[in-house]
Order: sequence, then C-alpha cells, then structure tokens
Amino acid sequence: MSLSISGTMSLHPMCGVFVLLSICLISFTTPCYGGNILVFPVDGSHWINMKVLVEELHARGHNITVIRGSTSWYIAEKSPLYTSITVELGEYNETSFQLVLQEQMRVCRCDASVLTFLKINNSFMSMINNVNFLWCEVLEKNFDDDNLLKILIDSRYDLVLTDPAVSAGVVLAKYLKLPLVLNVRWIPGGEGHFAVAPSPLSYIPVPRSGLTDKMDFLKRIKNLFFHSIVVLHQKFYLGPHYDALCDKYIEGGCDVFSLLQEADIWLFRSDFVFDFPRPTMPNIVYIGGFQCKPAQPLPADLEQFVQSAGEHGVIIMTLGTLVNALPAEVTEEIASVFAKMPQKVIWKHKGERPSTLGNNTLIVDWMPQKDLLGHPQTKVFVAHGGTNGVQEAIYHGVPVLGIPLFFDQYDNLLRLQERGAGKIIPFADVNSQTFEQALKEVLHQESYRQNIERLSRLHRDQPIAPMDRAVFWVEYVMRHKGAPHLRTEAYKMPWYSYYCVDVMVFLLSAAAVLLLSTLAIFRFLCCSRKRKTKDKQH
Amino acid sequence: MSLSISGTMSLHPMCGVFVLLSICLISFTTPCYGGNILVFPVDGSHWINMKVLVEELHARGHNITVIRGSTSWYIAEKSPLYTSITVELGEYNETSFQLVLQEQMRVCRCDASVLTFLKINNSFMSMINNVNFLWCEVLEKNFDDDNLLKILIDSRYDLVLTDPAVSAGVVLAKYLKLPLVLNVRWIPGGEGHFAVAPSPLSYIPVPRSGLTDKMDFLKRIKNLFFHSIVVLHQKFYLGPHYDALCDKYIEGGCDVFSLLQEADIWLFRSDFVFDFPRPTMPNIVYIGGFQCKPAQPLPADLEQFVQSAGEHGVIIMTLGTLVNALPAEVTEEIASVFAKMPQKVIWKHKGERPSTLGNNTLIVDWMPQKDLLGHPQTKVFVAHGGTNGVQEAIYHGVPVLGIPLFFDQYDNLLRLQERGAGKIIPFADVNSQTFEQALKEVLHQESYRQNIERLSRLHRDQPIAPMDRAVFWVEYVMRHKGAPHLRTEAYKMPWYSYYCVDVMVFLLSAAAVLLLSTLAIFRFLCCSRKRKTKDKQH
Repeated sequence: MSLSISGTMSLHPMCGVFVLLSICLISFTTPCYGGNILVFPVDGSHWINMKVLVEELHARGHNITVIRGSTSWYIAEKSPLYTSITVELGEYNETSFQLVLQEQMRVCRCDASVLTFLKINNSFMSMINNVNFLWCEVLEKNFDDDNLLKILIDSRYDLVLTDPAVSAGVVLAKYLKLPLVLNVRWIPGGEGHFAVAPSPLSYIPVPRSGLTDKMDFLKRIKNLFFHSIVVLHQKFYLGPHYDALCDKYIEGGCDVFSLLQEADIWLFRSDFVFDFPRPTMPNIVYIGGFQCKPAQPLPADLEQFVQSAGEHGVIIMTLGTLVNALPAEVTEEIASVFAKMPQKVIWKHKGERPSTLGNNTLIVDWMPQKDLLGHPQTKVFVAHGGTNGVQEAIYHGVPVLGIPLFFDQYDNLLRLQERGAGKIIPFADVNSQTFEQALKEVLHQESYRQNIERLSRLHRDQPIAPMDRAVFWVEYVMRHKGAPHLRTEAYKMPWYSYYCVDVMVFLLSAAAVLLLSTLAIFRFLCCSRKRKTKDKQH
Repeated sequence: MSLSISGTMSLHPMCGVFVLLSICLISFTTPCYGGNILVFPVDGSHWINMKVLVEELHARGHNITVIRGSTSWYIAEKSPLYTSITVELGEYNETSFQLVLQEQMRVCRCDASVLTFLKINNSFMSMINNVNFLWCEVLEKNFDDDNLLKILIDSRYDLVLTDPAVSAGVVLAKYLKLPLVLNVRWIPGGEGHFAVAPSPLSYIPVPRSGLTDKMDFLKRIKNLFFHSIVVLHQKFYLGPHYDALCDKYIEGGCDVFSLLQEADIWLFRSDFVFDFPRPTMPNIVYIGGFQCKPAQPLPADLEQFVQSAGEHGVIIMTLGTLVNALPAEVTEEIASVFAKMPQKVIWKHKGERPSTLGNNTLIVDWMPQKDLLGHPQTKVFVAHGGTNGVQEAIYHGVPVLGIPLFFDQYDNLLRLQERGAGKIIPFADVNSQTFEQALKEVLHQESYRQNIERLSRLHRDQPIAPMDRAVFWVEYVMRHKGAPHLRTEAYKMPWYSYYCVDVMVFLLSAAAVLLLSTLAIFRFLCCSRKRKTKDKQH
C-alpha cells in the first residue's frame, strides 16, 4: 500500500473571513477562526458537490486536506484548494463503473419487466457494496499504517467533513475522535433521513420505489416491501463489513449506523421545495441547491447560436457526468426528433455522431450548464435527473423532460413531475414518437413553466443562501468543538427501548396478570359459594 | 354580546421595510410587501411574547388587527401598534385567575404528596379548559354575528397569527380560509410538537412529568402514563368542544388537532439550546429567545444601587407577571436569607413588606429585568422559571436559582438544571435553610456560571437572529399565500393509515392464511398417505 501527500498548502493563519457574518449585521456575534478540515469525499458526481463546498471553505480561509483514492476519476492530486492524501485504492475505477452502467442501459432497453428491474437493482446494489467494501479495506490497511495515522493525528484537524454514501470517513472520524459533519443525501444502501429521523412509511416513499408522499393501501404495502429490502441489505450485507472494522479499531465497538446518528451536523443536499416534506432533526441543515449560482454570460459563439434561435428558443440536453454515451438506436431517435423542432438544440453528447442529426442541433463535449439554464432563451432542459441538474433547473426555473437512467434519477424527476414542473419518459420507452410528444408537451403546455417558476421563487426565498448556511454550520462545529446538544438521545438506545416495546410488553403482561388473577379470584369465590350451597343441600 | 373596534390605524401603504433582507445582501431576492395581519393572541404572559412580535411586524410596515376580550388584563384596547377588535368575554379575568394560583400555592405548601400533585394538576387542567371553553363560546357567538364577520372578511387579511394555547384563532383562520401562522409553545392541554411531529416517548419527556430526555425503564412507564392523561384530556374533554364548533361552522367538519397540523408555519418559542433535542418538522421555525435584546443602561438610582454592591455583585429575584405575592411565611424566610448575604438584592415583590428584610435588599414593583440580567454585576437570578425569564437568563448568561410555581415552570428550570446552569428548589421545600444553601451553591460554584455562559454562546451563535427569522417566515407566508409545500401528508391520514396498522394487519393475516393453508395441505397429504398405507395393510 502506498501513500503520498501533495498539493499546495494554503493555510490562512487564524481568522477566516466570515463573509456571511460580516455581511449580515445581526446582533449575534461570532469569533473568527481559521479551521483545519479533513475531507473524506466520495468520487464521481458526488465529488462535484463536495468540491463546491471545499472551494467555499477554502475561500473563507480554512485549510483543507482531502483523502483521495489512487485511481480517482475526478479528485485531482494537486489543487490550489487543498492538500491531498492519496491512498492506494485497487482496481475499481471509472472504466469498470462505465461498463456496469452501459450493461444496465442495455438490459433495460431489451426488456422492461419486473425481472429486469430486479436485475438492475441487484447490479446497482453490488456496485454500492463493492465501493463500500473497497474503502473498508483501504481503511483497515491505513489503520495499520502508523505513518499515515501519525500524520492525521499530528495535523490536529478541527473536524472531518465526509459524504457518507461511502461511510469510511465516518469510521475514520470516530477513530480520530474528531467532530463530524456530513455532506449527505445517501448513506450506504439507503437515504440519509432513514438513519436519523423518524420516517413513517405511510407517507415517506423509499427511494427507488417510484412512489410519492401520497400512497394508497397497495402503495404502502409496496413501500414497506422496498423498505424491507433496504434494511435487510444494510443489516445483513453492508453493515457487517463496517461492524468488523469498528470492532477491530474502535474502542468498545460500534455499528456504522449508530456512528452516522452520532454525526454533529448533517448538511443535507435537499430541501422541501425539491423533496416531499417529512420529519427532520435539529442537526439536519438543508442545503439543497447550494451549488447554484446566477448565470454568467455565455461564450460569444454559444451566445450567437442561442440568439439565432429567435422566438422559438433553445432546448438543452445533457445526461450528466457519469454517462458517456447512450445506445446508438436511442441517440438516433432523439436526434431525429430534435431535427424536426423549430428550436435550436445544444446537446452534450460524447458518443458517435447520430446520422439523423439536424442542422439546428449543436453537439458539444461540455456545456456551461448553469449559464445556459439561466439564459432567457432556454425553454426546456432534457436531463437524466441527477440531483445537481434538477436543483439547477429549479433554481433557474426551466421545465425538465427527464430520461432517468439509474440511481436516484427517477426519484428526483418524480418530484418535479409531481409538482407539474417536469415530465418523465422511462428509458425503456424512449423512441421518436414518445420523445417528440413529451418534448412538445413540456415546450407548449404553459403549466410546466409556471410550476417550475413557482418552485424557483420558493427556492430562492430563503433567509440566507444555502451555501452560507452550509459554511456557517461547518464553522459552528469548529467554534464549539461539535454540536452534541443538537443530537437526540435516540442513537444510544436499543431498538426495543426506542420504540418502548419493553414498556408495552410489561404493561400488557401486567394487565394480563391482573385480568387472570381477577378471573381466578372470581372463579374461586363462585366455586366456594357453590360448594357451600351444595353442602347446605346435603 | 357587544363588539367595538378602536385604536390607531397604522397602515403603511405597500412595501414593508425588509430590514432583514436589506441588511443581509444575499443573492436571494424578495419582493416588498405591506401586509394585513389578524392577530388572535392569548392573554396574560403569552401576550408579552406576542406583543414583541406585533411591535416588530408593525415596525416593518405591516398593518395589524388584534382581537381582544373585553375583560383583558394586558391587551390594551388602544395602541399605536394595532387596531383592536374587542369581543365580550364574560367573567373570566385576572382576579379569578389570581385566586386559583393563590389556592394552588397554599395547597402545595400544606402537603407535597401525590394527592396534592393530582389536585393541583386537576385545577390546572380546569383552568385550561375554562379558558378554551370561554373562547369557543365567544367564537360561536361571533360566527352568528354578521356585522363582525363582514368586517373580518372585508378587511382581506393576508394571514391569521395566533397563539394556539387557546385554539379559537385556529378555527377562525379556517373559517375565514386564511393562511395560518402559529406563535406557539403550547396547544390546548399539551405541548405543541406532540400535535405535529413524531414524538417517541422513549426520550421525549411529556410536560409536567418532571422527566428529562434520559429515561430508564420506570421513567418511560411514567412518561407513557403522563402522555395518556394528556391524550385522554385532549380527545375526550377539550377536543369535543372545538369539534362541536367545527362541525357547526366549518364546511365538512374537522377537529382542532387536524387544524393545528394544517397550519402553514409554526413559530416555536423554543430552541435546542434551551430544550432537549427531538424530531421536528419542515414548517416548524424555532424562535426561542426572540424577545431578548442587549441590555440598556439602568436608571441612575438603580445603577448606583447595583454599583454599591462592589465585588460581591447583585442577586435579582422576580416571580414573573402572574404572581402578585407569595405566602407571607415564604417571603419572610427568603428575606431573612437575603439579609445575611454580602450581595445587594433587587426583589420584585408586590405583597406585604417582610419583617426580616435586610438593608441590602431593595424591594421594587417593577424591574428592568433584561437590563439587570445583562448587567455585569448580576450574579444570580432567582426566578419562577417562566419561559421568558429562562430565555433571558440564557441570552445574558446568568445562572438561575429556580422556585417553580406552576404550568411549565418546573420543566423550563429542569432544562437549565440538566445542563448545570441552574438549580431548582421545589416550592414546598422553600425555607431559610434550603434557600440559603441553594443560593450559596449557585453563587459560589463556578460551574453554574460556566455552563450558562456556554449556553449563552450557543444561543447567540445563529446565522440569523430569532426575531428576524420570525418576521421572515410571517412575510414568507404572505408572499406565497401559505406554505403548503412544507406540510406533510400526515394530517390528512386516519391514524391506522399513518401507523400502517392496516398494512400490518393485512400482511399478518396473509401470513396466517398462508401458514394455515400450508398446514392444512400438509395434514391432508399425510392423512391420505396414512389412509393409503392402512388400505394396503387391510
């Protein structure tokens, strides 16, 4: 196992610039602090989110160290933002991930049955398992490596900031006895809230169940079924790997879900303009859309292309950072529909150039997505439904035509569809007819724009911007060396105490004993009276 | 029934001054709005809180109308802050309330047994019932009064702001079909959270149970017992009165607890520096300590008195706005202890002057409590534990010696005691020995000051001040004509759906049927095999 530490140390000696609090002249004062933060991110699209936060924390004068895998796809070894610690990660890299995704798409297009769904679900869970197991191994090796441990301990970090979709960072924080801030939406195998907040299954849909917060009897059965799968997967498959790690290295042992509950602050990448309302906790801070920024002017050539669309406006399409290429037959169908439209189209597409491509469609390797979404000419956003894209569509108020591919994408798009601000075409159903019909509906039915603009107004109407909120709470944990007063007693309790099962069993037993004793006494009295009567008769 | 409308109309035509948003130069913009707010307050100490919010809303350019009872103790008919609507309230006034309180104190001093507790509890609940029933009657009369209704409808209020400790305002909002903002800690007969957020009884103490968030098995039984009393009281005694009103005047009928769950925003007069952490909801906004302000200089004579204490500092004592006088034997004991102390004492006391009063003790009718609490000479706050006083003690960082009398006072003080920031002497136990010992402990044991100062630092470290938060969310509801997107689906569900009881019964029945069928088939097969064997043997 090798370890390398590199990057530009950008320590700002004491006193970070508290932009938030110097701008907001409120009566509440806060001392300045230049913090020392250990970041344990998740690679891929998750890093995009974490990097935005790292940039902001760096700009406010904090010193950041990022732990990255040697085969990382996105996390650069050298950066002006952070010092990196590279750990040997093994074979899991972008190529293997891409192969799984391509296979999932192929299976899904061939056969849209329940069996296919189960197959895809299985391969999805395997992917989650593999990444988690891999990082458990990495951690185990590093816990045995005195060199790295000495560096980590000597660095005297103020806190660990991690994305618990892979929870190795959570175990590391416990090992180093450091306060813990999560940048979170997912935990291993499930949605974050389910680990920490009461989640009545009667109106809180389990991710990937395809349900909303309005469920009838049958849908609630379905929800319970999906929840059971998640719990079983966590308890009997994912959990034990972490538990083994905890038992070996954490004093007194622990389980990873308790460690998650112990986190000081959950910076949750969601809000209730985007997600369905649900119970929450005092230490959950919603930062949905924290990455969104006002649109900047487009490069001159792109602006010229966009303006050339005239009154018809522009359609933009992207399937995010993970998907390199859709199957050829799908891109051909989509391109042929675009070719027929009076709008201009900007399409981020890396695969082969479709033969049906029209003159109105500009294929690009990369697009300034935020700036295009914020452009008044943009009429529809054709997207896969990744969290970032959906949040940006809400922020800029652009209706979405969604083609969900995997992970949480269907769930994200469903939230827009439920509010009348977007429409979903299942990937299996995409052909020129369905795509054209849906595209025209979202383009021409005024309600889509009205609804997404309403969501945009609600999202932007917050007392402080989500990014300022995120930074405030990271710095809060540093100032107070944790936030245990925001954490409930729940995580210390065994499940039977939490649900008062012991109390109920005791009370029911007591009631039963009371009832039986009463009956016994009553019977005894009756019998003795009968005996006396008989005796008298004799 | 009579009705009068008076006061100075202080309408600020359009565009309230959005101090918050003009100061906080964040990227999120909000249009200006001069709102029209109908306030339905609760009298007594609750009005003190509501008035602070009314003052702030008035200062920000909103037009306020306050509904008050004709026999109101605190709510002035004429005010530069609001227009008042006075409704005939009947006999319930301050004097009758004082008599009940005096009687409670007398009973409590005579005998501190469980029976006394039950007696006091009963009289406390009767008091709550009476106020609620009285306002239900008032509302019923007014729903039949076309004049008042016409005025209320024609005024085109933007929202109803009410304290649901008496929930008549909640029913009125529903009747007028107006958005609803609650300024809340209590609902009829219970604590607010229990109506709207999941409240596991394993770590959420029921008010008046005397429990904290750390409960063993027996304490959890006690908690369940107290919760049962509250629920039975609400369901079978208080609820039906409101239900009758709803059934008569609200289309389709309703119950008052569903109406509470339907509220757009809950401005909750608490926070998790003061209260134990617990699950919450997206539409609950914590504004604990919103009434607190930095201390202003004292009047010259009071400042002179305070400074004359020298290094020993000052003790201040007040039992709030509700209690006119403690029993004479108690004040004598307290005065004798004060007389012995090297500190100077400022005591807000309305009753007879105790004979044991020392020269160091200044008796006053009224004191500038906030300014004294914020004075560096103040060492200890002897208080009854009302929410306002406790929040101010936290804000200014002054340790508390608490003598709880009734309502939530014990619970409030318990929260300080649990954090080592205050000490409770039960009212029944107050005598010169206990009082002197406790006073000296809080004065000289450094941990009390350290702990309350820590709470003060935590309380003051918020991204925006609680009052700004309160005003922001009131204006938010006006801007968006409600906030239904922050309200869960829970309130529309019958309890058996909410708890998935129907799903569980169905699944258990299905499992039972499956099991029995399997057994039956198995038995049938066995029997037929046996029959065949027997047949062969024959």
